Amino acid sequence: MRNILIIGAGRSATSLVQYILNKSQEEDLLVTIGDISIQNARKLAAGHPNAEATLIDIHNEQERREIVSDSDIVISMLPARYHIEVARDCLEFGIHLVTASYVSDEMQSLHRKAKAKGLVFMNEIGVDPGIDHMSAMQVIDRIRDNGGKMLMFESFTGGLVAPESDDNLWNYKFTWNPRNVVLAGQGGAAEFIQEGTYKYIPYHRLFRRTEFLQVEGYGRFEAYANRNSLKYRDIYGLEDILTLYRGTIRRVGFSKAWNIFVQLGMTDDSYMIPHSEDLSYRQFVNLFLPYSPTDSVELKLRHNLKIDQDDLIWDKLVELDIFNGEKTIGIKDATPAQALQKILMEKWTLQEDEKDMIVMYHKFGYELEGKKKQIDSNMVIKGEDQTYTAMAKTVGLPVAIAALKILNREITTPGVLRPIAKEIYDPILKELEDYGITFNEHFTNYLGYNPDNVGG
Amino acid sequence: MRNILIIGAGRSATSLVQYILNKSQEEDLLVTIGDISIQNARKLAAGHPNAEATLIDIHNEQERREIVSDSDIVISMLPARYHIEVARDCLEFGIHLVTASYVSDEMQSLHRKAKAKGLVFMNEIGVDPGIDHMSAMQVIDRIRDNGGKMLMFESFTGGLVAPESDDNLWNYKFTWNPRNVVLAGQGGAAEFIQEGTYKYIPYHRLFRRTEFLQVEGYGRFEAYANRNSLKYRDIYGLEDILTLYRGTIRRVGFSKAWNIFVQLGMTDDSYMIPHSEDLSYRQFVNLFLPYSPTDSVELKLRHNLKIDQDDLIWDKLVELDIFNGEKTIGIKDATPAQALQKILMEKWTLQEDEKDMIVMYHKFGYELEGKKKQIDSNMVIKGEDQTYTAMAKTVGLPVAIAALKILNREITTPGVLRPIAKEIYDPILKELEDYGITFNEHFTNYLGYNPDNVGG
Repeated sequence: MRNILIIGAGRSATSLVQYILNKSQEEDLLVTIGDISIQNARKLAAGHPNAEATLIDIHNEQERREIVSDSDIVISMLPARYHIEVARDCLEFGIHLVTASYVSDEMQSLHRKAKAKGLVFMNEIGVDPGIDHMSAMQVIDRIRDNGGKMLMFESFTGGLVAPESDDNLWNYKFTWNPRNVVLAGQGGAAEFIQEGTYKYIPYHRLFRRTEFLQVEGYGRFEAYANRNSLKYRDIYGLEDILTLYRGTIRRVGFSKAWNIFVQLGMTDDSYMIPHSEDLSYRQFVNLFLPYSPTDSVELKLRHNLKIDQDDLIWDKLVELDIFNGEKTIGIKDATPAQALQKILMEKWTLQEDEKDMIVMYHKFGYELEGKKKQIDSNMVIKGEDQTYTAMAKTVGLPVAIAALKILNREITTPGVLRPIAKEIYDPILKELEDYGITFNEHFTNYLGYNPDNVGG
Repeated sequence: MRNILIIGAGRSATSLVQYILNKSQEEDLLVTIGDISIQNARKLAAGHPNAEATLIDIHNEQERREIVSDSDIVISMLPARYHIEVARDCLEFGIHLVTASYVSDEMQSLHRKAKAKGLVFMNEIGVDPGIDHMSAMQVIDRIRDNGGKMLMFESFTGGLVAPESDDNLWNYKFTWNPRNVVLAGQGGAAEFIQEGTYKYIPYHRLFRRTEFLQVEGYGRFEAYANRNSLKYRDIYGLEDILTLYRGTIRRVGFSKAWNIFVQLGMTDDSYMIPHSEDLSYRQFVNLFLPYSPTDSVELKLRHNLKIDQDDLIWDKLVELDIFNGEKTIGIKDATPAQALQKILMEKWTLQEDEKDMIVMYHKFGYELEGKKKQIDSNMVIKGEDQTYTAMAKTVGLPVAIAALKILNREITTPGVLRPIAKEIYDPILKELEDYGITFNEHFTNYLGYNPDNVGG
């Protein structure tokens, strides 16, 4: 029997564990599921004969090293910052590693040694990063293999609520870490290139510079820019590309309303509000508005942010109950971002019977035989329920498939990797199709920004 | 003879040196002027028989300690971060110290030892901080000595161009470090209290939440909030005050136009622009606007920031020549803030025959015998020329006066101090009157925000 160790039995591990346990008999696998919560681990093991649940504290070095050294491959679903300790153990004991997280500098620094030992340290093989890499590189390589020259690459992903569970004015619910949603876009200007020109959007303008995306059968979406699109120039080998842009997908109208919170300063995570625990939602809102002895918080907000009497944005704010004078924040020493998250979680938490949805959209602009063309490619995946969510499926299945293929020596390139090479993405994308994870492609003439090269 | 050592012979030291040299005969002073530039030091010494210019590199420990140990008092006009080394020497050799800078944590940590040795380490005794402390505390103490209870303290200062040299649409020129002006307000939300309620303004809204100030003979000004007003609660003993607000003064309309740069992201100092040296002003502006194959940079900017065809803001932008396609930034690896500073310095640099102006405005709200009252107090100081500027006078004279009074044992309280005690501010403010540095007071009923305690 081969030993697979899965560390981290959180919400994102359900489909991953399901896939591996389903294959465990035919593939002769013993699956150890380790978590800081033995309940979590047991829940995922679900009494399967090939599964073993175990308590594992990754900060306990001896314990961690023992369990890692017993494995043939380790899948780390831990928060990204904890991968490195596991990776060092894997290196020492000669064990392959798979994670769905971005390659950190520390992880990258292990490349040479992992390669020398013939170990595959596969990272960024969830959904974003992961399926985005694989699906994009498959089209980019195809275009280039046919003699095409890439002009434009735009790529968008969003974790959303499925239409059948979409019942609020924001057309949004939290499908992942709410804190990341509240802080999205902070930390510096968004940076990208359009038609050869660098472009920068400061955080406070980010949600007012969206673009629309149309997905057949699902209608219209919008996207705002991610912080750093330019790092994909090197990773994808697109050094000379004229347009490179990555973004986050929301339903139309979300960003314009979210911008109200950004403008007020409610997403700030850098200071604590005195006596935050006793503050009513209404008082919280009033922190960000000028004092007035007579005017209401409502009118001050409308005036301050120029919200017309008949603007639907207003209904979105009211729906969140932010003017409630009775409900309190209830968190001691909360930052504005933490207080806002508390308010949002009350309305935007998916219920047990509700479904999430992942939307991904790529645009590839290229020139082939003197003609400018474009391929639009998109994927929509819905969750089954609150256990086998779209997020768990799209993160977990590529991880699981990659892990098994590494174990079976179908993927053998050693080193610290992303799934951007044909020998990796082709078989994985092929197998993902069996699970309904497919892309629709649309071929058009180039629709990019500047077909006739005019203006500036 | 008593030895006064002045370290740092920059633009802010002219009036300081002039005052001390004028007193040097009657007071029996030998004045050593040390600077990293011997030319600067010689220029200020100006061949005066009681003055000696010397080259001093404060990073040369031995040299610094030798010259400090020869002194009876040291005045440090160095950049704030360099005071601490000098302060440690002063402590060791038992020498008094005067600076115009904010008390750093490191400086504060010397309090106990300085006190034990009977040394006066006087700080924050320029204009802001300095004259603001003294003039505010004089009125606050007077109100409290009369049995009044402080309700409100607002305080505003601005370094501006004098009316006779005010010839641009912004009614502004750089009178001090331009970099500080470009970066003003960054680093976190502005925080203050109004009528007992905490208020926060994020950076991107700061220049749209101004208030107006009227100064007799000088017309209308506006002020935007400083970052941290609340630290003055402890310093001034205003723990229970309902309204505490500090701000920066500009001419009316400046902030609304400056906000254009903030909104675009041009004041960002956190990243470098690729190939910035070759970028035209026009291309620099275009970095912050969406790409268009047909529309002009001008129209994109107008549309993006909703600037009407007849808005004077537009003329302010045009006056700065920001749409010029020929002039280049000319600075390698410039941040947006550095590039913007370059553009502004071309238009906003005071010429040799031009004059600056310092405006300070305090509002004191208080209750006395059941009645709510208010005192407004303001000061306007104009420079004589580009040597004896308003900035040099208002920074240098309080420093010089304090130094002499410490030397003459008229100020004796030992320790790390700010000029907030009566025994310090009374004689200094009295002498400043001889140099035209006076405040006009206006008495009214309380005009604060909430005389009738209604609303919320």
